[in-house]
Amino acid sequence: MSSASLSKATREKLRGVSTATICTALFKRGFRNQMIQGAVPLDPDKPTMVGTAFTLRYIPAREDLNPIRVFQDRGHPQRKAVEECPPGAVFVVDSRKDPRAASAGSILVTRLMKRGCAGIVTDGGFRDAAEIAKLDIPSYHQRASAPTNLTLHQAIDINVPIGCGDAPVFPGDIIVGDADGCVVIPAHLADEIADEAIEMTAFEDFVTEQVHAGRSILGLYPATEEKTKTDFAAWRKAKGR
Amino acid sequence: MSSASLSKATREKLRGVSTATICTALFKRGFRNQMIQGAVPLDPDKPTMVGTAFTLRYIPAREDLNPIRVFQDRGHPQRKAVEECPPGAVFVVDSRKDPRAASAGSILVTRLMKRGCAGIVTDGGFRDAAEIAKLDIPSYHQRASAPTNLTLHQAIDINVPIGCGDAPVFPGDIIVGDADGCVVIPAHLADEIADEAIEMTAFEDFVTEQVHAGRSILGLYPATEEKTKTDFAAWRKAKGR
Amino acid sequence: MSSASLSKATREKLRGVSTATICTALFKRGFRNQMIQGAVPLDPDKPTMVGTAFTLRYIPAREDLNPIRVFQDRGHPQRKAVEECPPGAVFVVDSRKDPRAASAGSILVTRLMKRGCAGIVTDGGFRDAAEIAKLDIPSYHQRASAPTNLTLHQAIDINVPIGCGDAPVFPGDIIVGDADGCVVIPAHLADEIADEAIEMTAFEDFVTEQVHAGRSILGLYPATEEKTKTDFAAWRKAKGR
Amino acid sequence: MSSASLSKATREKLRGVSTATICTALFKRGFRNQMIQGAVPLDPDKPTMVGTAFTLRYIPAREDLNPIRVFQDRGHPQRKAVEECPPGAVFVVDSRKDPRAASAGSILVTRLMKRGCAGIVTDGGFRDAAEIAKLDIPSYHQRASAPTNLTLHQAIDINVPIGCGDAPVFPGDIIVGDADGCVVIPAHLADEIADEAIEMTAFEDFVTEQVHAGRSILGLYPATEEKTKTDFAAWRKAKGR
Amino acid sequence: MSSASLSKATREKLRGVSTATICTALFKRGFRNQMIQGAVPLDPDKPTMVGTAFTLRYIPAREDLNPIRVFQDRGHPQRKAVEECPPGAVFVVDSRKDPRAASAGSILVTRLMKRGCAGIVTDGGFRDAAEIAKLDIPSYHQRASAPTNLTLHQAIDINVPIGCGDAPVFPGDIIVGDADGCVVIPAHLADEIADEAIEMTAFEDFVTEQVHAGRSILGLYPATEEKTKTDFAAWRKAKGR
Amino acid sequence: MSSASLSKATREKLRGVSTATICTALFKRGFRNQMIQGAVPLDPDKPTMVGTAFTLRYIPAREDLNPIRVFQDRGHPQRKAVEECPPGAVFVVDSRKDPRAASAGSILVTRLMKRGCAGIVTDGGFRDAAEIAKLDIPSYHQRASAPTNLTLHQAIDINVPIGCGDAPVFPGDIIVGDADGCVVIPAHLADEIADEAIEMTAFEDFVTEQVHAGRSILGLYPATEEKTKTDFAAWRKAKGR
Repeated sequence: MSSASLSKATREKLRGVSTATICTALFKRGFRNQMIQGAVPLDPDKPTMVGTAFTLRYIPAREDLNPIRVFQDRGHPQRKAVEECPPGAVFVVDSRKDPRAASAGSILVTRLMKRGCAGIVTDGGFRDAAEIAKLDIPSYHQRASAPTNLTLHQAIDINVPIGCGDAPVFPGDIIVGDADGCVVIPAHLADEIADEAIEMTAFEDFVTEQVHAGRSILGLYPATEEKTKTDFAAWRKAKGR
Repeated sequence: MSSASLSKATREKLRGVSTATICTALFKRGFRNQMIQGAVPLDPDKPTMVGTAFTLRYIPAREDLNPIRVFQDRGHPQRKAVEECPPGAVFVVDSRKDPRAASAGSILVTRLMKRGCAGIVTDGGFRDAAEIAKLDIPSYHQRASAPTNLTLHQAIDINVPIGCGDAPVFPGDIIVGDADGCVVIPAHLADEIADEAIEMTAFEDFVTEQVHAGRSILGLYPATEEKTKTDFAAWRKAKGR
Repeated sequence: MSSASLSKATREKLRGVSTATICTALFKRGFRNQMIQGAVPLDPDKPTMVGTAFTLRYIPAREDLNPIRVFQDRGHPQRKAVEECPPGAVFVVDSRKDPRAASAGSILVTRLMKRGCAGIVTDGGFRDAAEIAKLDIPSYHQRASAPTNLTLHQAIDINVPIGCGDAPVFPGDIIVGDADGCVVIPAHLADEIADEAIEMTAFEDFVTEQVHAGRSILGLYPATEEKTKTDFAAWRKAKGR
Repeated sequence: MSSASLSKATREKLRGVSTATICTALFKRGFRNQMIQGAVPLDPDKPTMVGTAFTLRYIPAREDLNPIRVFQDRGHPQRKAVEECPPGAVFVVDSRKDPRAASAGSILVTRLMKRGCAGIVTDGGFRDAAEIAKLDIPSYHQRASAPTNLTLHQAIDINVPIGCGDAPVFPGDIIVGDADGCVVIPAHLADEIADEAIEMTAFEDFVTEQVHAGRSILGLYPATEEKTKTDFAAWRKAKGR
Repeated sequence: MSSASLSKATREKLRGVSTATICTALFKRGFRNQMIQGAVPLDPDKPTMVGTAFTLRYIPAREDLNPIRVFQDRGHPQRKAVEECPPGAVFVVDSRKDPRAASAGSILVTRLMKRGCAGIVTDGGFRDAAEIAKLDIPSYHQRASAPTNLTLHQAIDINVPIGCGDAPVFPGDIIVGDADGCVVIPAHLADEIADEAIEMTAFEDFVTEQVHAGRSILGLYPATEEKTKTDFAAWRKAKGR
Repeated sequence: MSSASLSKATREKLRGVSTATICTALFKRGFRNQMIQGAVPLDPDKPTMVGTAFTLRYIPAREDLNPIRVFQDRGHPQRKAVEECPPGAVFVVDSRKDPRAASAGSILVTRLMKRGCAGIVTDGGFRDAAEIAKLDIPSYHQRASAPTNLTLHQAIDINVPIGCGDAPVFPGDIIVGDADGCVVIPAHLADEIADEAIEMTAFEDFVTEQVHAGRSILGLYPATEEKTKTDFAAWRKAKGR
């Protein structure tokens, strides 16, 4: 699935909802395992990341195959993947949850940013983490890690199904990331999840306002009282949502 | 033990001391295991949290008992607990140290704030973490986690003794939290620990000042030299502490 | 090896390069294991830390040997080590990767700062972490930890070879720390690693500039195209590097 | 649910099937999380364990509440639970997956055996493990652990819902254990799971025989070829199953 | 590399040496990471396993893609792989070190045995473990695990490079397994490693005999004394090795 | 403390009691942390191991200091330690709980056996594990591990205080090992712990007999009923214990 398959409208909707809300929408459909566990934002203040998954898979590095000179090969999968990741896509790296060596560094992330990619996620760690945090592209990892990827990781496959942070990621799936982390929306569900999440978000905003105003959550959240439904309808009208 | 049992004076004293100092006072009495391990503040700049423990216990979620509709039950333990947690209490959640699904989200934490609770702690994770960090109530967790609690956790008991981050927490124990994390003071020791910690804090402030002034720690910290004691007495008089 | 053995020039060079670059220079020489895994900066905005390693080794605390009064012994290894750590050195603590009790607190770290030490690193945790973060000395740990070190750690040896975060640290090795963490440079390699890292950093700065300007990484990083080498030579001349 | 609610017929059926087969039958009904993870049999050669769950819950031990003399209280929950666990029940202990101190020792397990209990499971460890392995009662733990339970565990609740090895266990659920470990069957599903597992076992026995005879698994397992179904029907007739 | 590329002679030699000896031979050539960490033999008394690697890769299971009926597809990668694994090969499964659901069960392992495969290894777990242990084929896993693989694992790729227990495994690499676990010999080194290991084994057998006879290891192991070398030469002549 | 300091009588007594009983005796004196966590017997059927601790400390291996030829140095600490470990002592290795490379192999363990040592313990792993299990010397580790120790471990210190499996071990402490694992008795407590454990063992044997005979544990274990005390006295007389 190319990144073109994520419609502009759905991308826009997903930018306005939280990963928490998306997780609940997925949970309602039987998906319990779509959160990329343990990946945190390098800069939690970035806007919400949305894009289609473009993947890179690492296996454990074998010493004879991973001297520093392998990077001189223009076809080296890590470098090739960075140049092939399409604009609007999120670069997702399966580092087998091992942050002891870097998944990538600031030069490659800068290149992804320049190529118009939507973000980068690894279940390992980035080197030059402070610099990456300042770039104008959202990034997620487990923790900073200075050693070059060759120390422990060998890039082996581009854009195949991977596991990332114990979640399944298929190329073309939709990745959404905010301060809580990253969630993987199966590609065929993107539109309906986006629509439902928009609705849920409106309701949660309403509830939050009510709770701030002193209302109990019982009967309000979820809306088991009739009054809640009436109040929400009035609130939507007033707010134009 | 109701939160009323924590006297206003003791609460005030505990607000002025650190969890590190309290840990040492507990250690002197043989308590080595009262720190809630692994729970970090969502906003490390919040003032010190002090309150009596009000607990919620989760067990692993069984799929048939935890569809999304269970929240429609006004008696659902998670929701009920939020409405019952008394003003001045800290809401402490036993999530079995599993942050892969949320212990709670911003709406519930907002409600606790509105109800006058003193804070919230889980050994799992919160969803909407960025929003919770900004609320005017201290909160502690292991890491952010977007999936709804039903994904992995089933709320089962309200206000029973629990384990939280490998520490024993009995309802009514005193929870104190600062940037280092949260410590559990057995209820019957609250007053004497508070008194001792106030004394220790004065001494540590004196020592810090001396060290900044260039003095060696030998003989000073701990106060094995007579001069240290005299100096400290003078300092207290000067500072009115 | 005393801290005097780190020349002023090499210290200066290492302040201007990243741990990521140093790791790569070490990797080229067959060192895959010199990163102190899991130790993060308390304040990631501090300047790069450089100094010779002065070590403290903990073993698990035995209860009868570690009552609070042991600190009254002026010869207690933890206190003694703080007073002996030479100016310009980094105090490196082997806490067996156990952050459940503190490796040190703000008073000792303040004293190290006053004595002119270059920094402090533990693979455990510090108490008074918020205060330590604000001190004018770089510090690295796994996470904050309020309980006194006596709870779990007994200081046993000063300035012997240790493991810290799974890396070997010999007294006199050079410790460099930035936002990505801390790397251990074997003492005899400090000068050549510093020289090589300076060169690599110039090239990486050039590459970063080019990538920001829109150039592909293929042929550029690493420099497999002749044009890259010519451009870099021109860039160096222009920049005076 | 008392252990009486497990019919003799269902108990007998479950004794003849494997936990692997039961897991698959549960999986078909949406249950993914019923295996008690990490608990291994002390004696893998014991017959299959079947019984209703009777639970004991531990929280982390607080030092002042857990001196050795607490056992002198006849009402101490651990001792009381052992005397109350009904014949035919499996004693299931929530030790918070912490095997560093014992969940129980040989004397208590011997008593459970004498009282006619069906087995004992902990997600922690047993002391006197070699002796327990030889008793005529199946037992499961993570690993042997000599320290008394008071070191780290405080028995707090009898026969409440618990988590054990990340699985939810409700009093009265059916526990089945074999060499692969222990599975928890929700009480209301025991009869239908037992029936289905008996059928599946017959088919798997047939398949195993065929595979030993040289047949490919394609079309055979699962039975997507018509011939497989005919052959199985003939096999059942021949075997009288 | 097909399994044909492992010569009969080399296979025979490798059957007579230990994984410990092979690890040392690999270490001398700079390979530090070829042990499949954490996989233990189901039956430690089986003869040494030797064969070429044939691999299966799992990713985390997504619920909608992994209902029980997927096995009805004859092309399901797990089933297909079992039928394609060549005689003499070792079936190596990348289960992402997650033993919470099975990598395979006794029927599939029986089929591999019947097809003449040399063994099976996973960094996860097998169901029906007791039965598999008794089959006439060596098997290695982390621990027994009853839940069907679909619960957590989705078979995705056949015979691609994988990570297994933190070791890199390329199709055609030579896998050797004994009671210490499994080691991966890069295919192109198989012959020379086998030869060297045979030599080392003769020497170690000689040393063991000498140590049993009371000789000190100093000068003997390694052979730094001239006498050791002379004695060994005499021993070889006497033993015909 | 030389191994001579463990009297023959105490050694004999300790051979007749369990680590579980010793742990309880230590617990009564405030010691909660003397169990070497995670080390299991290679052969659980060996008789109880008793001896004084002789220690070896590893740090993480630095590649340039640990080529295979280091063993040619007769003074290499690992080899030297094996030749210096006194008869009657237990060789205890601090491998930082890392079993990914071996702590020792069968030749060194054979040598320890020949030298009359009482046993060997590591919190890492042994290579040639199956062979070591058959030697006439008790051995304990976390799991088998084929790679040579040089891969990850550098022997650095002989007979200094160490941590082993999170327990403090001082040279001369008494190590006792059985099927439950190994416990460390502080040297100065060996005699009194042995005496108390002998008494406790007699009582536990009496209790076990009573429980087998059908008696409830209430009032019996611990002996809170007068009758229990009388019965025990009679039993001792009858048994001559």
